[in-house]
Amino acid sequence: MRSPEANAELALLLEVAGTPKPGNVDRHRDLPDLRFEHFLAGAVGARDGLELAANGAAVGTAFEQAVSGMASQKGGNTQFGALLLLVPLVRAARKEASQPVVEAVVRETTVGDAAAFYRAFEHVDVAVSDPPAGMAALDVRRGAAAIPALEERKLTLFDVMDRSVPGDDVAREWVRGFRRSFTAAERLAAADGSVLDRTAAVFLSLLAERPDTLVTTRHDEATAREVTDRAADLSEDDALESHRAAVETFADDLVDRGINPGTTADITAAGLFIALENEGLEL
Amino acid sequence: MRSPEANAELALLLEVAGTPKPGNVDRHRDLPDLRFEHFLAGAVGARDGLELAANGAAVGTAFEQAVSGMASQKGGNTQFGALLLLVPLVRAARKEASQPVVEAVVRETTVGDAAAFYRAFEHVDVAVSDPPAGMAALDVRRGAAAIPALEERKLTLFDVMDRSVPGDDVAREWVRGFRRSFTAAERLAAADGSVLDRTAAVFLSLLAERPDTLVTTRHDEATAREVTDRAADLSEDDALESHRAAVETFADDLVDRGINPGTTADITAAGLFIALENEGLEL
Repeated sequence: MRSPEANAELALLLEVAGTPKPGNVDRHRDLPDLRFEHFLAGAVGARDGLELAANGAAVGTAFEQAVSGMASQKGGNTQFGALLLLVPLVRAARKEASQPVVEAVVRETTVGDAAAFYRAFEHVDVAVSDPPAGMAALDVRRGAAAIPALEERKLTLFDVMDRSVPGDDVAREWVRGFRRSFTAAERLAAADGSVLDRTAAVFLSLLAERPDTLVTTRHDEATAREVTDRAADLSEDDALESHRAAVETFADDLVDRGINPGTTADITAAGLFIALENEGLEL
Repeated sequence: MRSPEANAELALLLEVAGTPKPGNVDRHRDLPDLRFEHFLAGAVGARDGLELAANGAAVGTAFEQAVSGMASQKGGNTQFGALLLLVPLVRAARKEASQPVVEAVVRETTVGDAAAFYRAFEHVDVAVSDPPAGMAALDVRRGAAAIPALEERKLTLFDVMDRSVPGDDVAREWVRGFRRSFTAAERLAAADGSVLDRTAAVFLSLLAERPDTLVTTRHDEATAREVTDRAADLSEDDALESHRAAVETFADDLVDRGINPGTTADITAAGLFIALENEGLEL
């Protein structure tokens, strides 16, 4: 049986290998400066931090270590959001990879975890939107400089995530019991075909449901909505089975336009971990 | 900086991702029962054994653990030969990933290392040829049952490798100071293009030089020679640059015929590790 840290690393690798995964790096597509091999190296680099989580380290400590290791490749940010989901899930898997357990893990995070989360931003450039009114002192782009403000307001990492919704669907997973991640795991288990085909199908189904928040951050709401509408049409038609070429065209089009639904990929990786951990996927 | 165990795992991942890699699973090709994701899982599974080697465990112990972890996926043998090269290289990298150091590592192996090597065959089916005359008691396919014969003859793992040449070019690396692995690393460092393009070019150059011993074992000498001759023609013409389609056709043809030059892939993985460890590859 694979350890939780091994399953989490494998989830990152399967996620990037799943194809077609419209707009993102996948088995058959690179972006101009962010290539498949950067994701391989990012997953390998994250392993030590994931192992810390599996050994019971604090969520913030394990996350900062995972991000620091992930960032030890030259492509830039590959898996920051995925790790923000995987670290608490791995921590939960010490007991059980279930919604109630991971919900307890994130609700028990501390101000110290929040400080480590802010330090993690110093290891890599992450695309984020401007903070809401009254939160400028807590802009994550300030990195460790924001820690005094965090401490003054006594904000835990859960509190920080809570304040990042709406506008960040990774944070939304934290406050909504990782609902979409567990749904993704169920779909992966129920789908047909190879693990990588299932990954592509589940990615498309998630993209069809909600506009990707990374697309909104980097482009705008209308673009994110357009992408979701196209994904919904293809997903409804079961296009991966019946008109695979249409999905491949969609994938190429998004890559050409530089539109990367990264948040949807993060949730797909979280779903892969849950499915591997709970024996919903044979590999 | 990446740890030796992380570099070794990454080498396994980059090796399988390199494309086109005629006859083998690569970023764009699966075999009927052995798919890309099995190699991803094999690499992740090997990590704990590689870490043992990096921490100074005996070569046999680390190798058996790496193989056992690698085999925890349903595709069968993915990286047995590559691990037989990587484990002593990782052990050497504690001091230096150089030819003299790895040569000392393999020459200092014991009868206990040989016993662990035989036990490793119980974790996975490996394609091997019949043992030479007088060696039936030491047929690796006997697994642990062969250990008393090993102990009676006081054979170390180095001795076992020495007796496996000719006919096994992984064993040949052990007795010839890992010469082709270090040559592969030099070529990877000197090549142009992305890491995965370099991997494909170096694989082809190695295949062009010597008939692959796994092809000889599974098919015959003539088939292995034919493959090498075709690889030599393509490599001389620098076909990956100028006629990439010809290499892709060659790759598809070998996959269709079930001809997998696995030993050449093993040496490519070893070269990737050395290049990563000695900063010959930027990633």
